[in-house]
Amino acid sequence: MTVVKSPLAEQDRKTVGDALQGALVDLIDLSLLAKQVHWNVIGPRFRSIHLQLDEVVDAARSASDTVAERASAIGVTPDGRAGTVSKTSGIDTVTDGWVKDGEVVGIMVAALDACITRMRERIESTDEPDPVSQDLLIGITADLEKFHWMFQAENV
Amino acid sequence: MTVVKSPLAEQDRKTVGDALQGALVDLIDLSLLAKQVHWNVIGPRFRSIHLQLDEVVDAARSASDTVAERASAIGVTPDGRAGTVSKTSGIDTVTDGWVKDGEVVGIMVAALDACITRMRERIESTDEPDPVSQDLLIGITADLEKFHWMFQAENV
Amino acid sequence: MTVVKSPLAEQDRKTVGDALQGALVDLIDLSLLAKQVHWNVIGPRFRSIHLQLDEVVDAARSASDTVAERASAIGVTPDGRAGTVSKTSGIDTVTDGWVKDGEVVGIMVAALDACITRMRERIESTDEPDPVSQDLLIGITADLEKFHWMFQAENV
Amino acid sequence: MTVVKSPLAEQDRKTVGDALQGALVDLIDLSLLAKQVHWNVIGPRFRSIHLQLDEVVDAARSASDTVAERASAIGVTPDGRAGTVSKTSGIDTVTDGWVKDGEVVGIMVAALDACITRMRERIESTDEPDPVSQDLLIGITADLEKFHWMFQAENV
Amino acid sequence: MTVVKSPLAEQDRKTVGDALQGALVDLIDLSLLAKQVHWNVIGPRFRSIHLQLDEVVDAARSASDTVAERASAIGVTPDGRAGTVSKTSGIDTVTDGWVKDGEVVGIMVAALDACITRMRERIESTDEPDPVSQDLLIGITADLEKFHWMFQAENV
Amino acid sequence: MTVVKSPLAEQDRKTVGDALQGALVDLIDLSLLAKQVHWNVIGPRFRSIHLQLDEVVDAARSASDTVAERASAIGVTPDGRAGTVSKTSGIDTVTDGWVKDGEVVGIMVAALDACITRMRERIESTDEPDPVSQDLLIGITADLEKFHWMFQAENV
Amino acid sequence: MTVVKSPLAEQDRKTVGDALQGALVDLIDLSLLAKQVHWNVIGPRFRSIHLQLDEVVDAARSASDTVAERASAIGVTPDGRAGTVSKTSGIDTVTDGWVKDGEVVGIMVAALDACITRMRERIESTDEPDPVSQDLLIGITADLEKFHWMFQAENV
Amino acid sequence: MTVVKSPLAEQDRKTVGDALQGALVDLIDLSLLAKQVHWNVIGPRFRSIHLQLDEVVDAARSASDTVAERASAIGVTPDGRAGTVSKTSGIDTVTDGWVKDGEVVGIMVAALDACITRMRERIESTDEPDPVSQDLLIGITADLEKFHWMFQAENV
Amino acid sequence: MTVVKSPLAEQDRKTVGDALQGALVDLIDLSLLAKQVHWNVIGPRFRSIHLQLDEVVDAARSASDTVAERASAIGVTPDGRAGTVSKTSGIDTVTDGWVKDGEVVGIMVAALDACITRMRERIESTDEPDPVSQDLLIGITADLEKFHWMFQAENV
Amino acid sequence: MTVVKSPLAEQDRKTVGDALQGALVDLIDLSLLAKQVHWNVIGPRFRSIHLQLDEVVDAARSASDTVAERASAIGVTPDGRAGTVSKTSGIDTVTDGWVKDGEVVGIMVAALDACITRMRERIESTDEPDPVSQDLLIGITADLEKFHWMFQAENV
Amino acid sequence: MTVVKSPLAEQDRKTVGDALQGALVDLIDLSLLAKQVHWNVIGPRFRSIHLQLDEVVDAARSASDTVAERASAIGVTPDGRAGTVSKTSGIDTVTDGWVKDGEVVGIMVAALDACITRMRERIESTDEPDPVSQDLLIGITADLEKFHWMFQAENV
Amino acid sequence: MTVVKSPLAEQDRKTVGDALQGALVDLIDLSLLAKQVHWNVIGPRFRSIHLQLDEVVDAARSASDTVAERASAIGVTPDGRAGTVSKTSGIDTVTDGWVKDGEVVGIMVAALDACITRMRERIESTDEPDPVSQDLLIGITADLEKFHWMFQAENV
Repeated sequence: MTVVKSPLAEQDRKTVGDALQGALVDLIDLSLLAKQVHWNVIGPRFRSIHLQLDEVVDAARSASDTVAERASAIGVTPDGRAGTVSKTSGIDTVTDGWVKDGEVVGIMVAALDACITRMRERIESTDEPDPVSQDLLIGITADLEKFHWMFQAENV
Repeated sequence: MTVVKSPLAEQDRKTVGDALQGALVDLIDLSLLAKQVHWNVIGPRFRSIHLQLDEVVDAARSASDTVAERASAIGVTPDGRAGTVSKTSGIDTVTDGWVKDGEVVGIMVAALDACITRMRERIESTDEPDPVSQDLLIGITADLEKFHWMFQAENV
Repeated sequence: MTVVKSPLAEQDRKTVGDALQGALVDLIDLSLLAKQVHWNVIGPRFRSIHLQLDEVVDAARSASDTVAERASAIGVTPDGRAGTVSKTSGIDTVTDGWVKDGEVVGIMVAALDACITRMRERIESTDEPDPVSQDLLIGITADLEKFHWMFQAENV
Repeated sequence: MTVVKSPLAEQDRKTVGDALQGALVDLIDLSLLAKQVHWNVIGPRFRSIHLQLDEVVDAARSASDTVAERASAIGVTPDGRAGTVSKTSGIDTVTDGWVKDGEVVGIMVAALDACITRMRERIESTDEPDPVSQDLLIGITADLEKFHWMFQAENV
Repeated sequence: MTVVKSPLAEQDRKTVGDALQGALVDLIDLSLLAKQVHWNVIGPRFRSIHLQLDEVVDAARSASDTVAERASAIGVTPDGRAGTVSKTSGIDTVTDGWVKDGEVVGIMVAALDACITRMRERIESTDEPDPVSQDLLIGITADLEKFHWMFQAENV
Repeated sequence: MTVVKSPLAEQDRKTVGDALQGALVDLIDLSLLAKQVHWNVIGPRFRSIHLQLDEVVDAARSASDTVAERASAIGVTPDGRAGTVSKTSGIDTVTDGWVKDGEVVGIMVAALDACITRMRERIESTDEPDPVSQDLLIGITADLEKFHWMFQAENV
Repeated sequence: MTVVKSPLAEQDRKTVGDALQGALVDLIDLSLLAKQVHWNVIGPRFRSIHLQLDEVVDAARSASDTVAERASAIGVTPDGRAGTVSKTSGIDTVTDGWVKDGEVVGIMVAALDACITRMRERIESTDEPDPVSQDLLIGITADLEKFHWMFQAENV
Repeated sequence: MTVVKSPLAEQDRKTVGDALQGALVDLIDLSLLAKQVHWNVIGPRFRSIHLQLDEVVDAARSASDTVAERASAIGVTPDGRAGTVSKTSGIDTVTDGWVKDGEVVGIMVAALDACITRMRERIESTDEPDPVSQDLLIGITADLEKFHWMFQAENV
Repeated sequence: MTVVKSPLAEQDRKTVGDALQGALVDLIDLSLLAKQVHWNVIGPRFRSIHLQLDEVVDAARSASDTVAERASAIGVTPDGRAGTVSKTSGIDTVTDGWVKDGEVVGIMVAALDACITRMRERIESTDEPDPVSQDLLIGITADLEKFHWMFQAENV
Repeated sequence: MTVVKSPLAEQDRKTVGDALQGALVDLIDLSLLAKQVHWNVIGPRFRSIHLQLDEVVDAARSASDTVAERASAIGVTPDGRAGTVSKTSGIDTVTDGWVKDGEVVGIMVAALDACITRMRERIESTDEPDPVSQDLLIGITADLEKFHWMFQAENV
Repeated sequence: MTVVKSPLAEQDRKTVGDALQGALVDLIDLSLLAKQVHWNVIGPRFRSIHLQLDEVVDAARSASDTVAERASAIGVTPDGRAGTVSKTSGIDTVTDGWVKDGEVVGIMVAALDACITRMRERIESTDEPDPVSQDLLIGITADLEKFHWMFQAENV
Repeated sequence: MTVVKSPLAEQDRKTVGDALQGALVDLIDLSLLAKQVHWNVIGPRFRSIHLQLDEVVDAARSASDTVAERASAIGVTPDGRAGTVSKTSGIDTVTDGWVKDGEVVGIMVAALDACITRMRERIESTDEPDPVSQDLLIGITADLEKFHWMFQAENV
């Protein structure tokens, strides 16, 4: 059933749809991961990192909504179900239980690093087929790289 | 490592911790499910349901934060990772792709029904060991039952 | 026609439904009574009491909405029509025309007294069948008892 | 006891007082009716109508306050007690229980129709004796006629 | 010098201009009077009346701005200078020094009474020549009569 | 098809409908004209006039919505399409390209002058058939005449 | 007269100016069309679509301001007069009178489709000569395509 | 009757009371003067000066309230009646009728100049007897001197 | 003198009154203690803890107001005077002077621990006699236990 | 241990530190006293005084924070513990239990009187050693004297 | 010491870092220049330009923060010290003392012109190595070119 | 050219002008320095210090505006150009590149120390010639000394 007519040619729709679906899963997982350590962080820097993680959660949730709705807008049905996230995310999971503050910082640096590498590939792959989707991915990547810097800066 | 000293006796801590962990997983999955159909709903009632689902998402996200932080407060580490949600949620998943508006309403009625049944068991099991946790679960259940009524009312 | 499936067993649904319907009628009548004397109060304390009464109106309106929607949520249709309120309210009516400020205070003490007595019976009767409804009634009663204190304190 | 000196001559005060008292009763009953169906509406259009009815409630409550305080300002004591509303309202009551969404729309069209007809008579009767009261009634009627159009438009 | 072309014929402009200029002076004086007793009121009802007077001040200042700008809009230059207010106001002045709260209420009843009588004459005189100016005067009079009722109600 | 039942008799509906449709077209064109010179104004007073024009745009847009919805409310379908505006507006168009600030002021004085003359005729023609519509037109005219004064005042 | 020095070479200024002028006209017409059906829509989905259309109006008005001011910024005078819109818009007009809700959805799908096709051409044509203007057009197109999806989703 | 016990010795109370009463009258007159020219200004700079004058009005009204309440606080009854202002103000009055924008600026420079000179004398005279009152006068003078600079800066 | 009629039987009133008075004193002392270390904390974590302590202060102040007004509402006069707090508080005092950040965290963990233990006893003792008071104590305890977790989490 | 280097010479630091510490204790006690009577006031003026007292509480709390942080800023550790307040406050305590409204006013007049006398001595003693601290004390005293006037004015 | 791992290859990091550092210095200097003339502008257009300059300051400050944090995010340490700005800015300085309003406009046109030329070179140089940084520079340039147009438009 | 007439005698104007110009330069440099380390700070306390520095930036920017506008108000042209700041600031510069969090705290303690010493001299030198300017400098110094304490407190 063709519900939404794509403004893109079929091949482009496929390429861009893959990029958006990949971004969606990574961003949802990033938000779940950041919440997980938001609840389980311990150590003298608890409060500072607890608050910082919620900024990542807010940004990741908002970005996941943006890319999912963009997928719908080009006629691709987004898939953000728990099972799909669990199976296809590009981010490593963490062990359960309390996590020391310094480790949390390291976990976030690694998770953001994984996201950013994949987002940059998506920026490249969408450049030709759809500059509109690319522009959204560029804006999201700028935010991720800002968080990346900040966690690295406190990882010294 | 005992990081957080529980205000509860060990057995009570265990009982209440199970209730909270169960609630956490259901609420996260409810928020992911509601977002999934928020993006994929189609049909004449699209806009109304699209907006209504985001109210469920907001409530479920806020409630999941409440129960997770309550778990930490009684010395139980919450687990809201994608894999855990995918494996232990009490809510049925949906198929991917577009979903007609009427079906979305039915899906939400069923998902809320599953959550509510389990939440009422948790209200009962926490009554003796911890009225503070119970009070939080009662408030969350009141909201879920309100959403449940509303989706049923439009399911006629 | 069963429109909304109750989370309660049939007997409990009946008991809780009666408590909520009774509360609904009392709260609507309280809001109408408070408005009536808000418009007709006279005397040196006019302004203070005029403003105070609108706080009662706001609280009673909001509480009546809460209990009516709770009734719907447990599958009981609420009835807040003028005729029903007029016939089944537990609050005495007032004579028409201007009312002196001191009398207004006495009227409000009596009306709140009547409401509170009945609300406390409802808190008791809903304890077993539905702690969720009970929790809402407890919160509303706390507000009514706070207003009750305040009008008594200025009734000295 | 003459508490408030009227800016109007006695006969005018009587005429305008009747118009305002009539408007007061109709507007309170409209707010109770709209709340009644706000709680009992069912059907696919549930959410949209549920929200729309609260806009009517807000407007009717605010308008009833305006006309009651205007009555006081011209030295006429307003009467908005449940019994008075029940006995003298110009709006037909509804049966209790769930109401289908399409019927709700019809009920609101009829109720607004009844109000508007009477309001237009009041606009005429107050023209000579008190342009200030008339101006308030004109403003309220504009709002009622706007709601009237909207419910008719969705009644097609 | 004709700076602003009037939308009114010359005679009408004169009539309406006089009404607006009269209203301007009364309203400025009302705001000065209300501030004077706002600062000098004493007695057990000090706080209530002190606050109530500032509501009169706000309303009178806003209304004076409305009528002055309306005068400019019909090509009549408004005059709100201290000397003009002092010489042509229709409101009686008060003695200086502390004033007991009960007296303040009486002073405000009398001042509002004087304003209202003159405003009603202006509503009549502007009816034919300019319904636009009349509409502004009607709105302002409704507010003044509301304050008039309130001060009378606490003057019992 | 009679969709919306008019509260007016047929002849009155026709008269008032013409007045509202005329007002709608003038107000839309006023908003387009004000935006056109908002973008093209040049000269030392650029910033001041650029900002002032957006106040006209906001007022004209809001007023056009008011009259269009009023037309619907009395059972007359409003017509605000580009072609209709272009053909039936009572306001002269401007040449394209940059416009000096002094000229912009003159253009706005003339455009408002044309609107006001026609609005005053509409106020007169709606007086008998529908005081409710007239009241809306009076309020809009008050705003237009205020802008008219201000542009004239800076046109000296 | 060269008022504003362009940051672009003459040929680029011409190309980009044409793209912006075309976008301006389409966006103004889109806002007028959406308002037209906002006022004339009828049917059971009246309220939902009535509200949705105002979101299109807000977005189109804001976007039209952005492109017009961008034109000025590169030294091209924008033309948004009613006659220009009526003559050069790329969107089909609608017939006057009431329109059924389903038809309104179809009309909006078609209008947005026409806009988007032309906006994508403008994104391409401005890529080389002016990435700054292109970036604004990309952002606007993302919004239009989001609305396009939503109306299609409810057009099923 | 000694209503308010002064924190100051009698001679100091007298000195400070005179300073505050003088400031009160000047500030009320400044607010009336600024409103007078706010309504009567004409010329190309109309809008800019019209807005700027309302900032003076706001500051002068707020400052007059501060000094009057300070007078009451030290047991001196403030006198801000129209007659007192008219007779004892230190600011020259203006002629009635329209005033050219350049002249308005000159009028404000002169009025502020007169106020500031007297305020500086009051700052000196209150230094010893009451540093609390002096501090309020210093803050008000800082604001007046800021307005003074701004009107001079545009008077070049 | 019986000023406020209790909704509770005499023995229950006594039991609940003791619980509320005890809570009042603990909460006031908690707010004073938290402010004391808010001002005297030193060390690298100064800013983070300084801010965190003000959240405790806000919560404790608001909770103390809630329990004191609840006491009044059941006819028990609350006692929150400095001497009573100093004599009957369940929280250990601290030495004066600067306190290292790590010590501050330990002090808060201990103080919250003492409060929570006593609050849980009060929850138990009020369960039978007054579920309304109990509900308020449950809500306050939930907040205290959340702060308790957070200070423990950063105490690792 | 010298943690914070004082901007003042040692003798000045001592003098100013004593003044700030004294102010801190008085202000905390004032806030506790005002809350105590806020909860226990009875009589016809209950509501007005109940609200007025919370304004004193807000001001006293904010002022106590200001002086305590100022003490820290000049290298003096502030002491606001319950025991210190109880022992060194300059304000008389009150008896427990309900207090009639008139008595409450008298209590507040006396308490503010005591505070003000001591604050004026502190203003004098800090004049030479530290004008920065003095400026803060002057601002706080202005507020206290304003409250002092208001309670006296209603004490007539 | 490598603190922040760059998402860019070394050569790209160098190119983009130079572009961002250049932009940072220009934007800080633009904010200082605009403040300088904000304080020193004189002439009839004082107020309008005084306000307009603060909009430039706000935009330039916000943009400088964006580019500096972007530099950090790609592993380049930004340098915004006064000496660096003074030595490497691309904007000409102004003479000290008062500046006539017309000259201020000319100064701002020239300063923005210099910035824009360099920003467009940076947009080009970052296109290949880093579309994320380029996107930020494009957005900033759009704002600068809008200000550029506005100052030119009032420079006629 | 004498643009702004000083309220001060020539010698006083000179003295106060020097104090304000010195304060202006120090405050601008403080804002640039705080931003520099805001961007370049690294270490575990990154986030806490990063946020704290922006509070210094906000305070310093706002204070620099206050002193510059005060200079204009007394007829002295302020000079805040990059070159002037670079040459005449009383604050030591920092080396470029990343800075460890502990060092940042030390840098801020030293910078604030330098500012405060000079501000206290300015408070003294302006005491006689201009208490109005002195009052502004006192307020700014209070803020600087508060930041000074806070950075010292975390420097232990």
